[in-house]
Amino acid sequence: MHLPSESFTPIREVGEFGLIERLRDTLGLTLDTVPDELIQGIGDDAAVYRVGEGRVHVVTTDALVEGVHFDRTFVPMRYLGWKAIAVNVSDVAAMNARPRYATVALALPNNVSVEQAEALYGGIAEACARYDLALVGGDVTAAARLTLSVTVIGEAAEHSVVYRRGARPGDLLCVTGDLGSAAAGLRVLLAGKQRLDASSNGEAGESSPPNLSEFAYAAERQLYPQARLDRVRHWAERGVKPHALIDISDGLASEVHHLCRAGSVGAVIEAGLLPIHVQTFKAAEHFGESPLAFALYGGEDYELLFALPEAEREKLDESTYAVVGQVVEADAGVTLRTPEGEVVSLDAQGFAHF
Amino acid sequence: MHLPSESFTPIREVGEFGLIERLRDTLGLTLDTVPDELIQGIGDDAAVYRVGEGRVHVVTTDALVEGVHFDRTFVPMRYLGWKAIAVNVSDVAAMNARPRYATVALALPNNVSVEQAEALYGGIAEACARYDLALVGGDVTAAARLTLSVTVIGEAAEHSVVYRRGARPGDLLCVTGDLGSAAAGLRVLLAGKQRLDASSNGEAGESSPPNLSEFAYAAERQLYPQARLDRVRHWAERGVKPHALIDISDGLASEVHHLCRAGSVGAVIEAGLLPIHVQTFKAAEHFGESPLAFALYGGEDYELLFALPEAEREKLDESTYAVVGQVVEADAGVTLRTPEGEVVSLDAQGFAHF
Repeated sequence: MHLPSESFTPIREVGEFGLIERLRDTLGLTLDTVPDELIQGIGDDAAVYRVGEGRVHVVTTDALVEGVHFDRTFVPMRYLGWKAIAVNVSDVAAMNARPRYATVALALPNNVSVEQAEALYGGIAEACARYDLALVGGDVTAAARLTLSVTVIGEAAEHSVVYRRGARPGDLLCVTGDLGSAAAGLRVLLAGKQRLDASSNGEAGESSPPNLSEFAYAAERQLYPQARLDRVRHWAERGVKPHALIDISDGLASEVHHLCRAGSVGAVIEAGLLPIHVQTFKAAEHFGESPLAFALYGGEDYELLFALPEAEREKLDESTYAVVGQVVEADAGVTLRTPEGEVVSLDAQGFAHF
Repeated sequence: MHLPSESFTPIREVGEFGLIERLRDTLGLTLDTVPDELIQGIGDDAAVYRVGEGRVHVVTTDALVEGVHFDRTFVPMRYLGWKAIAVNVSDVAAMNARPRYATVALALPNNVSVEQAEALYGGIAEACARYDLALVGGDVTAAARLTLSVTVIGEAAEHSVVYRRGARPGDLLCVTGDLGSAAAGLRVLLAGKQRLDASSNGEAGESSPPNLSEFAYAAERQLYPQARLDRVRHWAERGVKPHALIDISDGLASEVHHLCRAGSVGAVIEAGLLPIHVQTFKAAEHFGESPLAFALYGGEDYELLFALPEAEREKLDESTYAVVGQVVEADAGVTLRTPEGEVVSLDAQGFAHF
């Protein structure tokens, strides 16, 4: 008898995006019940569905998993609760929408105390108050590792929603805030942790660990990210609607590729124009790395990347964005122009979970 | 200097519901931004918010965590995907609403293959097709333990939503389906696993393990639960609206207490009227347990418990429900009348996660 051999393909062989594509194919084979009201399913920062005349809701879900997204030894519970909400609100902002409701599924190991769980919820409550949304549902279960799965539902006028697709050759590529500081902050926090570990083991540790107080901004960017709803509001006030929009969670390079693939366009990023904070430069120097690598491939900035028609530029307050490149025709690909004027292919390498 | 001592209260000291209450208090302290459209927040099977003239959406979230809710050694991936959707759809049914959209946050350990992840998604797709909802969002991350966090959004006419509150003295307490078979199925599956473990260790194992083929119904109830949308549809067709409604996920006793607390009423459950499947009796006999304990305290039936005005009874098809007791005044408490006519206090003991 020949038993069919069951294949075992390790996930790391296909990668996170490869896996997502195969799972999407699995869904495609059997799921043909798409409601008329569904405008955008899987494939953008959030799904979009109609809820009334000219009104839509958007929905997004993101989980934070201990040992993958955070290390409990240096992330205070309150920050963790904040971040779980903020990263989902960032996805709502990336549709040019505003958050309304959130649900949280919390999986708690038994070495988390009631007081720590309360601190976590304190951070969740703080973020909900800040971003003006209501926590309406929850599930609390036991688990081996602390996991927070958050879903946020937002709302918008149907005509104001901005998708990843839609960028046109000639558009300016712009970002909010600065790039790479959250990744720099993570490196600093990890080095601080290694020093503590080493000293508690009686070892010397790293010869010259970074001084945390010099990197307070970068550490805060890592622990306490801000969803850019302020920019969404600014655009609404100024009557500006970007052609395309995505949030920068996996690093600028990766997001530029998403935007270009979705819009069937190419892009030129100007390395010399990337907004990089002085602490990111300092951290790069300390660790012997390139500040450009932090800015292009460092994850968790939660800033917004958007394609802006040149004519809209004057409507925006100059302090609210930085131009980092331009949208070009698809066949020109996605490239980076170095400060020296050299044009190189920009690969999509970003934060890899697997 | 006196540092404030940081308390460490283990979660098991306050229990799941105690923890949820304290977390709700934490939210209450800081969260005062409740949108006008929010009709029901935390505290029912799903939250309810208005989305248009006379229309509401409901939203619920529930996670399945490896080692807590399931054991991968005897739960096929396809069933697991199905169940993650079905248990959330059950919460939507428990609001007398219909599911529309789902999001799934999947945390995958690296010993899960791409093929297994596809099987999991196959089950998710099957459940989405069966219950007529669209999977619109997802997040896939690495993790130490397999975790599926699902959020389901449903819809209903505002006037047709049924809450946990609302039961009135004199109402009949009714359930759909039978009670306790999912818990019986779990016992059978666990015994089968122990036998396999023992034989692979060269041990004799349990002297007379249950024959799985005799318990196919119970095992299916555990692995492949059905959300009772069929009953929600039946009520709509017959113009019946229960006074109060909850799904039976933690055992009948626990849910009766929720219904009574929410409605400020009491209840008498008639032990002799509980619908118990023959395989539940057989399993109870095999394991030397009481079938009544399975029916009252066994979790994961995902049937519906509802309070029905006596006058509505004749509108319903007799085969779609069983009367199991009656709603009484609050001061009579929650009691169980044994087949011998003895009335005893019914405690809320249900499935405990911590």
